[in-house]
Parts: sequence; C-alpha cells; structure tokens
Amino acid sequence: MNRQELLAKLNEIKQGTLAPEELVRTLQKEPFEDIGIAKLDLHRGIRQGIPEIIYGRSKTAEQMDLIVERMTEAGAEDILITGLSEASARLLGERHRLEYDSLAQVGVVNPKANREQKGLIVIASGGTSDQAVCEEAAITAEVLGNRVVRLYDVGVAGLHRLLAYHDTLLEARVVIAVAGMEGALASVIGGLVSCPVIAVPTSVGYGASFGGLAALLAMLNSCASGTTVVNIDNGFGAGFAASRINQMEGLE
Amino acid sequence: MNRQELLAKLNEIKQGTLAPEELVRTLQKEPFEDIGIAKLDLHRGIRQGIPEIIYGRSKTAEQMDLIVERMTEAGAEDILITGLSEASARLLGERHRLEYDSLAQVGVVNPKANREQKGLIVIASGGTSDQAVCEEAAITAEVLGNRVVRLYDVGVAGLHRLLAYHDTLLEARVVIAVAGMEGALASVIGGLVSCPVIAVPTSVGYGASFGGLAALLAMLNSCASGTTVVNIDNGFGAGFAASRINQMEGLE
Amino acid sequence: MNRQELLAKLNEIKQGTLAPEELVRTLQKEPFEDIGIAKLDLHRGIRQGIPEIIYGRSKTAEQMDLIVERMTEAGAEDILITGLSEASARLLGERHRLEYDSLAQVGVVNPKANREQKGLIVIASGGTSDQAVCEEAAITAEVLGNRVVRLYDVGVAGLHRLLAYHDTLLEARVVIAVAGMEGALASVIGGLVSCPVIAVPTSVGYGASFGGLAALLAMLNSCASGTTVVNIDNGFGAGFAASRINQMEGLE
Amino acid sequence: MNRQELLAKLNEIKQGTLAPEELVRTLQKEPFEDIGIAKLDLHRGIRQGIPEIIYGRSKTAEQMDLIVERMTEAGAEDILITGLSEASARLLGERHRLEYDSLAQVGVVNPKANREQKGLIVIASGGTSDQAVCEEAAITAEVLGNRVVRLYDVGVAGLHRLLAYHDTLLEARVVIAVAGMEGALASVIGGLVSCPVIAVPTSVGYGASFGGLAALLAMLNSCASGTTVVNIDNGFGAGFAASRINQMEGLE
Amino acid sequence: MNRQELLAKLNEIKQGTLAPEELVRTLQKEPFEDIGIAKLDLHRGIRQGIPEIIYGRSKTAEQMDLIVERMTEAGAEDILITGLSEASARLLGERHRLEYDSLAQVGVVNPKANREQKGLIVIASGGTSDQAVCEEAAITAEVLGNRVVRLYDVGVAGLHRLLAYHDTLLEARVVIAVAGMEGALASVIGGLVSCPVIAVPTSVGYGASFGGLAALLAMLNSCASGTTVVNIDNGFGAGFAASRINQMEGLE
Amino acid sequence: MNRQELLAKLNEIKQGTLAPEELVRTLQKEPFEDIGIAKLDLHRGIRQGIPEIIYGRSKTAEQMDLIVERMTEAGAEDILITGLSEASARLLGERHRLEYDSLAQVGVVNPKANREQKGLIVIASGGTSDQAVCEEAAITAEVLGNRVVRLYDVGVAGLHRLLAYHDTLLEARVVIAVAGMEGALASVIGGLVSCPVIAVPTSVGYGASFGGLAALLAMLNSCASGTTVVNIDNGFGAGFAASRINQMEGLE
Amino acid sequence: MNRQELLAKLNEIKQGTLAPEELVRTLQKEPFEDIGIAKLDLHRGIRQGIPEIIYGRSKTAEQMDLIVERMTEAGAEDILITGLSEASARLLGERHRLEYDSLAQVGVVNPKANREQKGLIVIASGGTSDQAVCEEAAITAEVLGNRVVRLYDVGVAGLHRLLAYHDTLLEARVVIAVAGMEGALASVIGGLVSCPVIAVPTSVGYGASFGGLAALLAMLNSCASGTTVVNIDNGFGAGFAASRINQMEGLE
Amino acid sequence: MNRQELLAKLNEIKQGTLAPEELVRTLQKEPFEDIGIAKLDLHRGIRQGIPEIIYGRSKTAEQMDLIVERMTEAGAEDILITGLSEASARLLGERHRLEYDSLAQVGVVNPKANREQKGLIVIASGGTSDQAVCEEAAITAEVLGNRVVRLYDVGVAGLHRLLAYHDTLLEARVVIAVAGMEGALASVIGGLVSCPVIAVPTSVGYGASFGGLAALLAMLNSCASGTTVVNIDNGFGAGFAASRINQMEGLE
Repeated sequence: MNRQELLAKLNEIKQGTLAPEELVRTLQKEPFEDIGIAKLDLHRGIRQGIPEIIYGRSKTAEQMDLIVERMTEAGAEDILITGLSEASARLLGERHRLEYDSLAQVGVVNPKANREQKGLIVIASGGTSDQAVCEEAAITAEVLGNRVVRLYDVGVAGLHRLLAYHDTLLEARVVIAVAGMEGALASVIGGLVSCPVIAVPTSVGYGASFGGLAALLAMLNSCASGTTVVNIDNGFGAGFAASRINQMEGLE
Repeated sequence: MNRQELLAKLNEIKQGTLAPEELVRTLQKEPFEDIGIAKLDLHRGIRQGIPEIIYGRSKTAEQMDLIVERMTEAGAEDILITGLSEASARLLGERHRLEYDSLAQVGVVNPKANREQKGLIVIASGGTSDQAVCEEAAITAEVLGNRVVRLYDVGVAGLHRLLAYHDTLLEARVVIAVAGMEGALASVIGGLVSCPVIAVPTSVGYGASFGGLAALLAMLNSCASGTTVVNIDNGFGAGFAASRINQMEGLE
Repeated sequence: MNRQELLAKLNEIKQGTLAPEELVRTLQKEPFEDIGIAKLDLHRGIRQGIPEIIYGRSKTAEQMDLIVERMTEAGAEDILITGLSEASARLLGERHRLEYDSLAQVGVVNPKANREQKGLIVIASGGTSDQAVCEEAAITAEVLGNRVVRLYDVGVAGLHRLLAYHDTLLEARVVIAVAGMEGALASVIGGLVSCPVIAVPTSVGYGASFGGLAALLAMLNSCASGTTVVNIDNGFGAGFAASRINQMEGLE
Repeated sequence: MNRQELLAKLNEIKQGTLAPEELVRTLQKEPFEDIGIAKLDLHRGIRQGIPEIIYGRSKTAEQMDLIVERMTEAGAEDILITGLSEASARLLGERHRLEYDSLAQVGVVNPKANREQKGLIVIASGGTSDQAVCEEAAITAEVLGNRVVRLYDVGVAGLHRLLAYHDTLLEARVVIAVAGMEGALASVIGGLVSCPVIAVPTSVGYGASFGGLAALLAMLNSCASGTTVVNIDNGFGAGFAASRINQMEGLE
Repeated sequence: MNRQELLAKLNEIKQGTLAPEELVRTLQKEPFEDIGIAKLDLHRGIRQGIPEIIYGRSKTAEQMDLIVERMTEAGAEDILITGLSEASARLLGERHRLEYDSLAQVGVVNPKANREQKGLIVIASGGTSDQAVCEEAAITAEVLGNRVVRLYDVGVAGLHRLLAYHDTLLEARVVIAVAGMEGALASVIGGLVSCPVIAVPTSVGYGASFGGLAALLAMLNSCASGTTVVNIDNGFGAGFAASRINQMEGLE
Repeated sequence: MNRQELLAKLNEIKQGTLAPEELVRTLQKEPFEDIGIAKLDLHRGIRQGIPEIIYGRSKTAEQMDLIVERMTEAGAEDILITGLSEASARLLGERHRLEYDSLAQVGVVNPKANREQKGLIVIASGGTSDQAVCEEAAITAEVLGNRVVRLYDVGVAGLHRLLAYHDTLLEARVVIAVAGMEGALASVIGGLVSCPVIAVPTSVGYGASFGGLAALLAMLNSCASGTTVVNIDNGFGAGFAASRINQMEGLE
Repeated sequence: MNRQELLAKLNEIKQGTLAPEELVRTLQKEPFEDIGIAKLDLHRGIRQGIPEIIYGRSKTAEQMDLIVERMTEAGAEDILITGLSEASARLLGERHRLEYDSLAQVGVVNPKANREQKGLIVIASGGTSDQAVCEEAAITAEVLGNRVVRLYDVGVAGLHRLLAYHDTLLEARVVIAVAGMEGALASVIGGLVSCPVIAVPTSVGYGASFGGLAALLAMLNSCASGTTVVNIDNGFGAGFAASRINQMEGLE
Repeated sequence: MNRQELLAKLNEIKQGTLAPEELVRTLQKEPFEDIGIAKLDLHRGIRQGIPEIIYGRSKTAEQMDLIVERMTEAGAEDILITGLSEASARLLGERHRLEYDSLAQVGVVNPKANREQKGLIVIASGGTSDQAVCEEAAITAEVLGNRVVRLYDVGVAGLHRLLAYHDTLLEARVVIAVAGMEGALASVIGGLVSCPVIAVPTSVGYGASFGGLAALLAMLNSCASGTTVVNIDNGFGAGFAASRINQMEGLE
C-alpha cells in the first residue's frame, strides 16, 4: 500500500465507510500469507513486478511442494526454483508441471508458453567450467522476459576469442561477465562496452582461488568503471539485476 | 574504431585512397596519447560517452597538472578527479578552473555551467559518518548529468527514519545504498523498491568491521534480489554505474 | 560451596565435629564425579540452577549412554543433548525415555511432564532455512522453563512481514534473532524493541557467506545498541542465555 | 507510536477531530528531526527508555556542537558521547556543561546530579591495558542508572586474583568480562557465576592477536554457556546491553 | 658425523689409511638409504636419539609396509606410525607385529616389552572430544620412554575440576594442555604451574572455531608466560617436544 | 597474425587480390573453432609453440571425448589432460590412444613415440606426500620435450638428504621445488643454486597449513632471490613455465 | 599455599591456634596486593621462582613508576620491563636504577651485579632485521640467569653461514630460532639439533608476510619434530620458556 | 666450494701439502665474513654470479655505511640497495659514490660506467600508480646487465593501449607484468606472448584490495599458463628472476 492508497483509506475512515479496526488489521495482515513453514508474499508481483522465487537449496521436496501448491492455487506461472536438486525435481515433477535444467539446478513450475524476449542481455563466461552458473543466470533472465545471448569460453588468456564477439557485446543492453580463477573477464569486458556490466565470480578453481574469493576480490577491484558485483556463484542474482536494468523505461 | 569503420577503411585501401602503412599506424596509435607518465585516452568520450576520469589518490600534483593541461588543450570539460587531497587541490586550483569538495576529496576541472539533470538517482546512507563516500557518489553522478537526491542518516536501527522517505525511494530510477558497520541498509532498501540498487560498503566502523569487510560481505549476501555491490568506499564506482543505468534508453 | 558454607565448615573443624582431612577431601572431590570418559558435574544444578547438558556432536552413542545412565541414577530429569544424530538417538531411545527432534538434532532424556512456561522469549528468523538453529534455541529455552513464541521467515527483504508482528516483539522479555546470509535481522529488530536481543548468525548461505562469517560480522557490527551475539549456529547458547535473562528477578 | 496510539488517532479521524492529512504527516515526520547533518531521534526516550547517544568517533566538534545544542533545547540530560577526542572535548566544554573521561574518551553533556544506582553490574578485566574499554562500559552503565563495581587486572594467568573476588561476582546481576590477548576471562567467569555474562574482546595485544580477533574468536567459542559477545573494544555496547538486563522487571 | 669425527677421518686420509674418494662417498651417501618412494634416515637414532617416525596420513599401506619391512631388517623397534587408518592398520597387522589405537589413529610396530617411564608428563584436556589428540600425544610420549598421566575433561568452564588436580599438575615436569573451542585451558594451567607448558589447539568446535583457528590464536596470545604452541591437532609434536624437555639432563 | 602478416594482407587488398570482407572475416574467425561446449584454439601451436591442453577437472568424459576427437582429426599429438579422474580415463581410453598416470591424474592422448629430452629440469620435493603434484609437473615437462630428474623426499628437516644431491641441483637449468607444510624447501634450494627456481606449494598438511596457504605464503616471502611461485598444487603450471625457461635460446 | 600448607592451617584451627575467619581472610587476600591500577603478585617468586614482570607496552610512565616503587620497597631486584619506550625509560631512569636497551625496548630496574649464567641458550636469527626481537629474548634469558650465545644473520638462503656454527648449535640445551619472512630457519635448525627448539616468528617482511603471519604459519607447520612456537615478535615469551627448559633439573 | 674442489683439497691433504685442521677451518669460515651486525657473503659472486644485495628497509644508515664500506674495500661495484629512504640515501651519499632513485627507493653504490645490456626484459604496468614497483624491477634488471623496455599504464580496462605494443611484447625474452587492483594484466599478457611472464602484484588500490591481496590471488589463479608470481610489491625479486631467465645460455 503506497502513500496515495493510505490517504484514500484514511478518508474512507473519515467518511465512516471503513472501520478503524479494519485498517489496523489490514496493515498487519497484508500482504503475505502464513502457511506455517513460510510466509508467502503473494502480492510481491504487484509491488515489484515479479513473482515469488523459491530458494530451493535448503528446502525439502515436501516443503517446496506445499509452497508451489499454494502459489499454483493463487494462479502463479513461471515459478522459478533455484538450487533444485535432481531428486527433489523428480518428486516435484510428479505433482506439478515442471521444466528442469539439471546442470544449472533450476526448475520452472507452470512455465508460460510464450515468454517475452525484451532487449538484450549478453552472458559471457571465462571457461566451460562456469557453465552451470551462466545457465542459472540465463534461465532467470529468460523467465523474467529478456532476450539472452550466451558467449561461453571467451576467457582473457585467449583474447582473440573475446574480441571476435566485440559486435555482440556492443549490441548488449547489459552484460553479465561470469568467471572463476582470476576473474579478469569482467575488467576486460568493462573496458570494451559502454553498457552496465554485472560481474559474477564463480567457485571454479583450486588452491589459492579459495572457493571463488580470488575472483570476487578481483572483480570488486576492477579498474573498469561501471562494473558491479554479486555473490560467488550467484547466477540468479545477476540475471535478476540484469533484467531490472534491461527493462528500464527510457527517460522521457 | 568499430567494425563498420574498419570495413570502410579497408575499402579505402582497396580503392587506393589510403596507404596500408597508414592504417597500421592508425590502429597502433589511436586512440590514446602517450605523455610519458600516462597514456591518455582522449577518444574514450567517443567510445563510451564519458571523458577520462583521473584517479588522484596516487598521483602527485605535478602529474595531475600535466594531465589536466593536456586534456584542457584537447577541449575537455568537467574533468573529474577523485581522491584529490587538499594540498594537491590548492596547487591545481592555482593553474586551472577547479571546483573542490574537501569532504569527498573530489575535484572538477573546467566545470560546465549548466549540467543536465536526467532521471533520478537516490543516495541513501546509514549514518552521517558515511557522508564522504556518499558525496563522492553524488558529485560523480551530477557531473555525469544525473539528478541526485540525498537521504543521509537513515540507518536500519531507526527504521521509521527510512520508512518516512519511502515515497522518495519509490520515485528513484536507481538507488545507491551506502553503509558501513553491518551494511544492512542495502537489504532493507532492496526489499522496498523495484528499481536497481547499488550497494556501497564503507570502512566506517571499528573492531570486527575489519575496514569495511563486514559491510562488504553483508551486502554480497543480501537476501534482497536485484542488489549489486561495488568495492569498499567506492563512491565513484557506484555513481558511475548508477549513471549508466539511470540513462538507459527505453526499449522500443 | 560458597563463602558462608566454607566458614560453617571451618567452625565445625574448630569445634572438633569435623576432621580437617575430611574438608580437604571434600574440597577436592566435590562437586563432580569421574566416570572415566568424563567428569560429571552432578552438583551444577545447585550452583547454577540448571542440570548438566550434553554436547553430543563428538560423543559416541555408548559414551552418551554411560553418561545418561549415571545421571538418571542420580535422579536427573530433562537431560538436554544437543548435536544428537538420528543414529545415536535411535540407540539411546532403546535404553532411555527420549524425546527427539531430528531437524534440530536435539534430544531430551527423562522429559518432565509439566514444564514451567515463564515470561516470554520470542525467536525470530530470517528464512525457513534457519529453522534447525531456531528449534535448537527454542527447545533449549522450553526445557529450561520459558515460554517461547516462534516468528519464522520474517527476513528484512520483506519488511512488512516483520512489522506485522511488531506487537509480539514488543511483548517479549528477550528476543533471539536468527539469520544467515547478511544477518541484518538483528539490527532491524534491535531498533524496534527495548528488551535485550541475542543475535545468532547461521551458516545458511553460500559463496561469500563463508560458512556464516558474513552474518557473524554483520551482527557484531550491529548499529542497534543492546544486541549481543553468540557463535555461528549456536542455537543452544542463545536459548540458554535468553533463559537466564528472561528469568531475572526484578529489582526490589 | 504504538498500536493503541494508532487506534486512538484513527478513532479521532473517524470522529472528525483529526484530519487524515495530518496523520499522514505525523507518521512521516515523527519521531525524528532532520537537522541537515543528522536525523535526530528526539522521541527515542519514549520508545526505548533512553536518550539519543552520540557516536563521536567520526564527527567533527562542530557537528557535535550542533546536535548537542538542539538536544539541550529539547531538554535532554545525560547526553552520552563515545569516541570523543580530547580536542573535541575541549571545544564542546567551552559551550556546554560537559563531564569528560580522557582515558575512556567518553563525555556526558548536562550530567544529572543524582543518578540512580540500580542493581549491580560487575565489570571484570584481564589486565590494566583493558582499562579504557572497561571505563567506556562503566560510564555508560552509570549514566543509564546502574550500580557498577570494577574488578580490574584479574586475568586468568593469576587465577587466585580472580577467585579472591568470587563473592563479588556471585552478587552481580550481570557481569561484563573485558579481555584482550587470549580472551579466556569470559569462559572462566562464565563457569563461576549463574547470571548473564557479556564478553568484550579488546584490541590489546600484538602479533597474532590481529587487533582483537583472537580474543573475539575465543569468546564466541566459549565453553561456558550463557555468555554472549559484543564487538571488539565495544565497551559502550556491553554497558548498554548490561543495563537492559540489570533493569529487567521480575516475572510476576 | 660431527666435527671431531671429521677431523679424525681427515687425519686418516693424511696418514694414507683412508682414500679421499671414500670420504667424499661417505659424506654423500650417509646417513640415509634411498628405497625409491622415500629416503630412510636409518642413522637418526644415532644423531637425535630417536628412531624414524612414519607420518602415515598420506601413505598407502603398501608404501608403509615397504618402509616398515626395511626398518625391521635394520633392527628397529617401537616404530611409531601416526595418522594410521583402520584399513591400513589391518593390512600392516597381517605382516608385522603391530599395536594399534583406533581412536588416536596411532600404531607401533615391533613394540618393546618394557619401555622406560622417565619423569612425568601430564596431559590435560578441556573436554572428552579432545581425547583423540590427547592419546596421540600420550602414546608418542610413552613410546619415547616417558611416564604419562592423563587428566581429561578438566575444561575451564568448570574450574573446580581442574583445581582438584592441582597437586598432580605441580608434580609434572612438563604439561601438555590440549583444548579446542576457546583454548583457555593453556592459560589457566600456565598460571598454576612453574614447569614448561606445551599447548595443543584442537579442531574440536564449530562455527567461529574455524577448524581450530580460535584455539590456536588464543594459545599464541596466552598471557601465561612460558607457554609454547604446536600446530592444530598435533598431538604427536607435543608429545615429542615434551619428551625432549622431560628427559633433559640436569645442569651440573 | 603478427604485424608483418597484417601488412602483407593489406597490400593484397591494395593490389585487389584480397577482398576486404575476407580479411574482416579472417580476423574474426581465426584462430579458434567453436564446437559448442568450447572454443578450440587449434592454432595455438603456431602462436605459442605448444598444443591445446585440456583442464579436465570440471569436464565430463563426454565433453573431453568430443574435444579430443576434434583435435585428433586436426592431427594433434601428445594432447595433455590434467585433473583426469580414473573413471573418465577409462572411458577415454576405450576410444582413444591414452597413456594415464593415476597418481598424478594426468593423461596423454596420442602420445608421441620419441619425445625430445632437452636441457635439464630438476623436480625436488619435501616429502613423499607431494608426489602427485611432482608427477603432474614432471609429465607436463616431459610431454613438452624436456629432460626431467626427480629428487623426492629431500625436505629441509633432514638437510643431509638434500645436500647429498647438491651436484644434481647445480647441473639443472631450472629447478621446481615442491613442498607442503612449511614450504621451506624453496628457500633452501634457492640459496644453493644460481638457476631459476619455481616454487610449488602443495596442500599437504593439516591444521594451520590451511590447505596449502602456509606453504604458499612462505614461498612468496622466500629470502632466496630468484624464486617465483605458482598456485597451490599447480604442478602443471610449474612444469609449463619451467619448460619455457629451460628451452630459452641463448643470447647471440 | 599448597595442599600441605592448607592441611597445616586447618590443623591450627582444630587446635584453636588459628581463628577460622583469619584463614578465610588469608585465602582471599593472599598472595597479591591491590594498588589500584594493578594487582601486584608479590609472592609469585615463591610459587613460580621468578619475579613479577611488567608488560610496559600499554602502561604510562607514571603507572610503571608506581608499580616499580612498590616492588622496590618489597625488595625486588632485576625487575624486567618489556615494551618500554625511550620516553618512558627516561622518566623511569630519573627515579630508579635502570638499565635500558633501546633496540629491544627492554629495561631492567635494580639490576643484580652478578647474575648466574646457567646452561646454554643459543639464539639464532634469519637476518639483522630480527635483532630487536632477538635481544628481547636474550635479555630476558640473561636476567633469568641463563648463559646466552647469539647467532645472528644465519638465514637459510645462505646455508653455509648456519652450517659453520653447527658445533655451537649442538652444544645448546635450548635453541631459540627467530625469523621473519618465510620463517624457514626453525625447520632447518630443528633438523640439525636434538634439543628443544622454540620458534619465534617476527613481523619483519612486507606484502604477503601479512605482519608475520607467513612466518607464524610456516613455523607451526614445521616438518622438524620437537619445535614449538610463540606469538609473533614475542621474544620475551621465548626467552622465558627457554629459561624454564634450560634450568630443568635432571632425572634422578 | 664444489665437489671437484673438495676432492682436490682432500688430495692435497693426502699428499701432505695441506693440514687437515686448515681444511676444517676453511670449511667453517668460508665463504662469509662476520662484521658483527651481519655476516657478509663476499664470495656469492663466485657461487651465483651476482654481488651481495642490501635489503635496506630495516637497516640504519650507519649499519649500511659499515656494510658498504667493507664491500667497497673488497672491490665491489654496482652494490644494489633496495628500500633505501631519502634520509639514509643522503647520509650514504656523503661518504660513498651513490646513484639514487627516490621513487623506487633504490640506490646503487659504486655504479659501473658501462653496464652490459643483454637480451630484452619488458616491464609492463597497469597504471601510473605502479611506477615505483616497476622502477625497482627495472633498475635491478639494469644493474644485473639486462636491456629493459618500460611499458607503463597499459591496463586491461583500455585494451587498445596494450594491444598497440603487441610487437614489443613479442620481442621480449621475459615480460614482467606489474599490476595492483584486480591484477588482470598478467593473464592478458600471458595469453599474448610465448616467453616466460613474471607477475608482480602491487599494493596499489583500496578497500577490498586488502593491501595487494586481491592482485596476488588473481595472479596466482591466472588462466594463462607459464606465468609465475612474486611477493606483493617485490619489484626487486621480479627483476632478479627475470635477469636469470633472460641470461640463460642456449641449449647446445
């Protein structure tokens, strides 16, 4: 409820068409539903323009089934579940209409037939090992209605591979740069384009990569202005943020 | 030089109106100028839409004077210098037209009279101690032609202060959330708005804040989707990235 | 044995009703019993008002059986075992009267029929993934005789969910704020209430959460005065400390 | 404004004695005042029972003068300023009635003549080097109306010094254990008393104390149940939290 | 070969009773034997008074069998193997005379019938969970000919348990203090005794114990003079160093 | 394509023997081939003198099969695969000519019959536990055409073992020093030789070795000039760099 | 007071020659004196064989003057003060008989004329930069009555310098190995001698030495058995521990 | 003294032309000279082909004067002193023939008139802020007789600047890549050249650069094979190692 709506409600009270107790109750209850194991935010679509997303990594299949069921009853489509294991996907798939990508560990319940494909988000990765994180970002962006182009295995140690796709990069409205190890890809891309760049460090590597810390620090210290960073392996977060930027309305 | 321009040049060679040696020379020299202590990127404005920015923290006043002089000769306006100490500012101010903010340690040489004020970037901070970083972001964004609104001292421990400005937050095209200590501001704002949020951790704090590490980690782990992060105390980077997003053209 | 008791004993010696050797022996032996694998503190109930608690994480079922048996012989009820695996619980359950919660990995041997439910401890959590730690805190607090109210999944990214329960928070004598990822919940709650708040960081998260480090640092740096912190995932410690505070006698 | 007050206001609107616009304005403005450099929370005393406290470490004397002046106009007494340097104290002292402790870097403006001295908070420290942090805790607690007993230099390497004060510890309603280096004091005291213990790690030490990290980790891992921890060198936070616990009302 | 022996050899050369080439060969070959997978130091007993010890953690049963076989041929007794898994112990036990402790993961091949039991090394531990590390230290010390007394589960949170054994501690020539979690045991014991104390941090704990780091840092920062530290979980190293100290000859 | 080749191509365009479009196409496509899952750099042999190397750790057997097949078609020999698991090796071995070392987890497809054995690279290790990393380095160097001598188990705690091989060390053109735990081997060897030394920290160790961090830091801080370092466990990188150095042409 | 003394006192009470109240008082007061800023342990000499030592780093000259005065009255000689700045030394020197070493920052008040020089402690260092820490260890050991031999600048990168003093090392009863940077000296010495070795990491270094962390980790991971470690730069602790070991009585 | 020389000496003893005692003495004394504060390695030139180098960071001007004087007496030229402050340089310059670079903090005593300029070492840096480290490397390499080309300010965010010098990079025998912040330069250069690359992380940066840690980790994780790394800011070490590689003799 925004400021205008609040004023309207208060005027209703003044006019006697609304009981004060009711507004107090509304302010407290709305806009989520408590289903015991979680408090579902069924109105988020109205407030933020996107449906509830389920972070599946630490939920049992039973818990997710319960949540999905309630959301389906409320008419939700394109329910995105990240961190969905193959075992849980199998169980959910028996009771719901589920699309599942086992590499990215991402599922979509009640997938829409014709999604929009707005603008252009380019997802570039340093190596094939980063593919799972890339796909989490790509599917998230696609479900949210964006056009996505994938540029995989264009790491900086073989610069000619990246430069060959310079045109594609220049067409992007947002670039997501995904890289493990030394994470240099974000800086190099940041210097080649003039659109926003979101950097995703991955835990790909060994030894002194310390689970993605090396790539994370490198990306935070990027000398390319205009680059921002998300958590290690957070493909979903990058896809989500890129969608918001890609779908920005123009300045009048 | 982009793909189309390269093709044009190659056609000139084919037609004999351009000597091959000249193109080789152009490809090598362009688009920067080597002035000894630095390689000035005088054409960046063409490629990325913004002038060269000087990272002043580790440069002497003499070095900056040399760079600024050359850029001024090339007609540059609104030359932004971050990390500019008061002593260096005094010296530069004697030889150039300089606006200087001593709190933010930011200077602008050859400031434009009438800058554009496009869209809306809201800069919110957790406490007054974060003001220096906020102002670095704010001045950067203003120099780059954006309208900026400042919301300082709205930290999460006194939630009513932040909620009082909910309307302002909802009007923003981009929000920059600046906070030290536990860095929770970014998550709370991220849950209140539906536009892109850029989080800036600051080194404000003591003990286990470890120079801003606590705020940085908190922001990277934000449970609010759509939040991206820049380096500790990197007000410039946040202002720059916010400008790119704020000035996005709309999808046709 | 406190100062008054020592004085009494010494007077008995003076009066010849107690042999000096006996006091020396008492001082040495009391108040624990050495059962080989452990030194049981059977008198802790007298000194600190609570029974021995078993940290089960690194003990075999056989070791715990031995300890529980000896405590049962000494008449102990409500023996709390934390970090109790399902396998060990099954073995212990065959030989003792055991209540077991498999999510929290907590067992209670010889559970009392009617526990007291004093005061009010509210346990709030950021997400459903924090439930195991919450339940460890909740069961600990209940076994120690406190009334407990659970507020789960009220993370700061959906602030309205938390604010809906503002009244419940205001009724609490102590709040336990449990959160992983960025751990912002403790600061927000700390700003809403005027009772003591105990923050419990959890290891829920991935990437730069570094096993709960991000939440721990955030909570230690909380800008909300009056918040104190326990170890990562230490639901037991929070429940125990909250019980001590909740059961404080009033100032006369 | 709590729930009952909101209901009352809404009834006034219903009865036509309050304009809806006015309540909207109240909800937004109240309960803080924006003085430019800060948003003063003049009503916190009502909500949380304590006045605004000024974190002076990162504020100029001029900024603090402005804040203090406004608070004095609003009738505030016992305004606590932590992290107050000697230079700033000298300036503030010229324009306000100021008590200043240079070791603890703590000032009190408009000190009350007769403070209450409720209950008992015992502050124990490992060594004389921890005195500054101890005094920050002690003065905070005293300003908030608590009786404080100081037990300094009772570190665990000379256990007899601590045990000599066992009776004092047993009389405490709350103990604040302050220690740098290995931080073992909290665990030992935690085993001796049955009241809540708040542990404060200090940055006293060198080498592998890593600025207080060693003591912090030790205290978080304390094997003594019922101990909670605050940030390194956070004497204020410990004094504040101890005050809340010490002043708990008894269970009816 | 020490200085005197070298001089003797050189005199033999001078007298023509030793060929120069032979001495060169001796200097190179002695005092180890290359068996391919390792370079056995069969003469270490002569130089350092103790036999070769096998670090089994990263060796296959076959490799250890080969080494043990060669050492047995050379007449070695009491061959200590640390980090010996149960599976490898079973295989070695079929081909050699092996004593094995599965908790400590320590084996002794060709155990001597009557070992010496010199002096007194007391091994004290904070909790039963530290027992494996304690036993590695204890068996090492016993194999090296020392008398060992075990004081387990005497952690500082129940100080009376430790103080009850003050006499035993005072009789020790060396104390090994083994503790995980906050590692305070070493400091407390260090204050009670006047003999050398060797502190062994263990990886027992969870959350912010960070695999023993908390205990390690605490022990390195111990305020009790005379305490030295070994690596996390390094029971062997502590037992070995304690043996050297316990068996010191007196000053004449 | 280097500068001379570009000039030649441009002259062809000038002479009309080459279409401009073709050069654009060449510059873009060359020198890699996109096979979907990867972008194969089939011309690297020409540019850098060595074939594509496959980092197998994060690739499925199917992916590697596809890559190897395409490379075999292109005539590649001695295709090196690091991080190759036994399971994947079995599958690859059924369809290709594969030499496999299960300790080093290294495979070579289409191994050459007679490799060159140029110069001398000596690989020295601290203990037998470092053997896997050593062999990764050794096989890499051998496949790249270098003569390799292995000096295993010559750690600094038994200095005589290392000194016995001083002559071998002095003959080396490059030394690779491999060590876990305290990593001192690199410094000692660095002081004994005058050729380049490449230090490889390994993750061998426990407790405060923190997965090789201790050895890595020690090697980076080596007081022996001329030592450079690679990532923890990066035997391949050391072998590769050593090969480049060993095969340097002399100064004319 | 040990067990026998306690028994004696209790028998006095039984015989009526000692009032019980007096013993309680004695147990509480003894064995330290509270002088306000500190609790002086004047009886430590009796219990541990050494006088109080003053950790001067965080004490004012006035505080130290007060402590020293009281100790001098009690007849103390050879009062060691570590971390004593030149300014404080000048002030103390005006009022007390003080020997001062400005490099080691160590002072001795009331120095004894003829100290004992028992046994032999050898102090070896990696470089001249470690000299301050070495001298803190050396003076501590000398004040405590030990013979000390200094071997400075014998780092492992020039092994011949260390080996030249092999005989001296073999004569030592204890060796203190002091080194910064990579800290390898302790391991190499540990392999050359059969007496106890105490390793002291120093903060000498830069970059990835991280204030001595590199040397500390290296020493904790030493492959040379029998080595124990103290805190970074803790020369005093090493000298103190070495003294205890050097002065061990022999086994009868 | 190598193996052949030892054999010769031993033959002299056999023939009676050398006294055994003399050889013992030689082996011990040679090849360094003890001047009290240091052990000068005057023969290192013979063994390793380079003179003693003075690490000046932690030495007083007086100490360096003493060392330089003794080395000058022994005929040394081109004595390199790193970490030489301006104050110390002024003092040394009064008594010795000194060339000094104040930016790099490097001095050369008794500089040679005509140094050799062998091969080619290219030093590339990310930004002008890295210049001090670059010059330390450059001067070191020049003193050691190498030809050096400097490529400063060619960071990866402006890739065209680096690519413009591709030819220079291809001519290098060794490249030293110097970069702070995200350290990506090493990976990009590593992919462009086929000669050895030595990466030098610098402490240039702020916030999450953590004093050069970000660049260090990035370089250690470089995806470009053949890159090795030295300590943060270690320009000297890179110059020294590059010199050894650049001056390699060719394989016959």
